[in-house]
Amino acid sequence: MPSVYPYVLKKLIETFALLPGLGEKSATRLSMYLLSKPDLCETLADLLKELPYKVKMCRLCRNLSEDEVCEICNDQTRNPQLLCIVESPVNLYHIEKTGVYNGYYFVLHYLLSPKEGIGAKEIGLNELIELIKKRNIKEVIIALSPTLSGEATASYIFEILKKFPIKITKIACGIPMGMEIQFADPLTLKKALKGREVLKEL
Amino acid sequence: MPSVYPYVLKKLIETFALLPGLGEKSATRLSMYLLSKPDLCETLADLLKELPYKVKMCRLCRNLSEDEVCEICNDQTRNPQLLCIVESPVNLYHIEKTGVYNGYYFVLHYLLSPKEGIGAKEIGLNELIELIKKRNIKEVIIALSPTLSGEATASYIFEILKKFPIKITKIACGIPMGMEIQFADPLTLKKALKGREVLKEL
Repeated sequence: MPSVYPYVLKKLIETFALLPGLGEKSATRLSMYLLSKPDLCETLADLLKELPYKVKMCRLCRNLSEDEVCEICNDQTRNPQLLCIVESPVNLYHIEKTGVYNGYYFVLHYLLSPKEGIGAKEIGLNELIELIKKRNIKEVIIALSPTLSGEATASYIFEILKKFPIKITKIACGIPMGMEIQFADPLTLKKALKGREVLKEL
Repeated sequence: MPSVYPYVLKKLIETFALLPGLGEKSATRLSMYLLSKPDLCETLADLLKELPYKVKMCRLCRNLSEDEVCEICNDQTRNPQLLCIVESPVNLYHIEKTGVYNGYYFVLHYLLSPKEGIGAKEIGLNELIELIKKRNIKEVIIALSPTLSGEATASYIFEILKKFPIKITKIACGIPMGMEIQFADPLTLKKALKGREVLKEL
């Protein structure tokens, strides 16, 4: 087949198609749209040039930040005794969005995966312990996804942290709000029963 | 809500989310992926900087091109008597991919839309007539989508071109290959009956 598109357009389509969730069709649509938006091209290009150099990890909590220490770690109004362990900055963002948590965070960036060489060092275990001591944390909330590797990582972290004089909790697993019980999988239903909430004591 | 993501990352997510087909979630996914791929950021940025300046319209057929005249118009091996009218470079690409057409093209870039001020000038009618004369075209194939505005544009072009000594055809409308007739809409079925193919004459 001859090259129908001009070189730079063809290259842009191919490059967009390398990104997760973009196939040839959506990459073409994006490129064609950008063709008629020179200002947007310029903005995107400038941001992409800056991105790898400007964004680093917060020295304390490993959240993404343009500064040494991120905005959340610098926020003095937060509950200083709470620390929430999350897998990624995206999950941190989702927890912030709920508006019910006002403690600090620690971002693992990975879940344990011995096969891929992801161990205690990669998830920042030493930094985590240091932060717990430094902030004099009273409760650590483990907020990892209840997947196979999420659960394995949570257990591992629990085993390490249990010797410290802190409360350790894990976010609840159960039926999602609005879901019919008949559609919940048996494992989730089991967890929901086991983790039942007390409404009134005997 | 506090700004959880660093400024440049937040801006990149917002900018990606302006593109068609990308919502906040997919824009976040792309940005997070790019965060760990500095080379890809660089490549994308460079292509986006070049795009608006390098890509222009072919002087003859209005296809996208880095040169005055596009590769297809410069291709001397094509059937010089055939001209196919398409809406967009993407549709041109899809027709090329079929491998059954080897004539030249003309790209409208728009369908007629009086409400949006898109008329004969915008779809390049004068350039089209000029090209038909210049190339001494024998058959014009109208290959526009059988949508409301596609059909209206096709009728208009037909009315203008019918006074020229050329054959004018339109791509067939009918049941898509592999589709069960019971699932075809009545209008398509009507078109398929009307445009039936002769297998044997009386």
